[in-house]
Amino acid sequence: MSTSKAHTEYLTVKTRERYEMLHLTPQVEAIVRRSGIHDGLCFVSPMHITAAIYVNDNEDGLIEDISVWLEKLAPRNPAYKHHRTGEDNADAHLKALLLHHETTLPVTHGRLDLGTWQRIFYAEFDGQREKRITVKVLGVTKD
Amino acid sequence: MSTSKAHTEYLTVKTRERYEMLHLTPQVEAIVRRSGIHDGLCFVSPMHITAAIYVNDNEDGLIEDISVWLEKLAPRNPAYKHHRTGEDNADAHLKALLLHHETTLPVTHGRLDLGTWQRIFYAEFDGQREKRITVKVLGVTKD
Amino acid sequence: MSTSKAHTEYLTVKTRERYEMLHLTPQVEAIVRRSGIHDGLCFVSPMHITAAIYVNDNEDGLIEDISVWLEKLAPRNPAYKHHRTGEDNADAHLKALLLHHETTLPVTHGRLDLGTWQRIFYAEFDGQREKRITVKVLGVTKD
Repeated sequence: MSTSKAHTEYLTVKTRERYEMLHLTPQVEAIVRRSGIHDGLCFVSPMHITAAIYVNDNEDGLIEDISVWLEKLAPRNPAYKHHRTGEDNADAHLKALLLHHETTLPVTHGRLDLGTWQRIFYAEFDGQREKRITVKVLGVTKD
Repeated sequence: MSTSKAHTEYLTVKTRERYEMLHLTPQVEAIVRRSGIHDGLCFVSPMHITAAIYVNDNEDGLIEDISVWLEKLAPRNPAYKHHRTGEDNADAHLKALLLHHETTLPVTHGRLDLGTWQRIFYAEFDGQREKRITVKVLGVTKD
Repeated sequence: MSTSKAHTEYLTVKTRERYEMLHLTPQVEAIVRRSGIHDGLCFVSPMHITAAIYVNDNEDGLIEDISVWLEKLAPRNPAYKHHRTGEDNADAHLKALLLHHETTLPVTHGRLDLGTWQRIFYAEFDGQREKRITVKVLGVTKD
């Protein structure tokens, strides 16, 4: 009989730039292996409200296209009401909402069950300081 | 040995306004505690297609910024094809798609494992009537 | 005592058109039933980076509105940097990011626990070739 299990780890990241995309697939894959979970789901999310997780291609041109596109749809500008609090990062909240703050990924045969080109990215929109990312694997161990 | 468990509750909400953001964190946290689940995932979603769930800051200025931004990207206007059915809420469907209709949250040590500023919001875009929200916690109980 | 279980199936789709929305609810519902899982979560995601999954109304006018809206927010045009690789589908990546590449759905009493109008759609933005969709049900069987 298979046994249910949950396994949690926290990654800490600090980007050099205010806006930056970090490729996370190898770190998440390593956590899935350490979990010992054979079949289940892997949840990945920053513990912050100015960053997101997305799954797409690890191709530099596309990563630049995504950044330009996010700036067009959720521009950095000083007219946000949130800035009355002294903050200047309302655009970071909107960009994070656009990409969604979490993703769930399938785990099959003890590995991330991703398609050929699917890669996990951490999208930072207010960086240059330490941020934490939760990775939680939930599922069943091998019979 | 830990035992796997699922626990489901439904919240009913009715906003005063057609467009409104409701802070849900305390209600979801209470459901997580009642579930008795120690480690797992908590799924939150409206059972409707004109509302969304999002996770971000509980700051009034930012909540207004999000509403203005959604109206810019998915404006209410009478030219939608969906309105041929007699409906007038196509923009509500698009706004809901933009924020995503569901979220998953981590549960650790029997509590929502959120970052300092992460709060759960129900985003209503066609309110003034009763709507239901599903909250399902899936995970393992304490050993 | 309930037993935890994971059940995975892969759907293969091939759209006639480059851009097309496919209604998937019956296929996903059938997988949930075959899983034998009584209570849990159902994960649905394409294994591709130019397609998405969304949940909304099965109404032709609205489906057209969604397509027009996506083209407005993430237009097909030749100026993307990703196109330097020889690809011409950067817009498909952006459209997929906008709708999110995966969704999680609740399973209660052995069935998808959806609201009256909630339907699952596969959103293809670079079709006319075979694509795979992962459906994974995780939860507990009946006592």
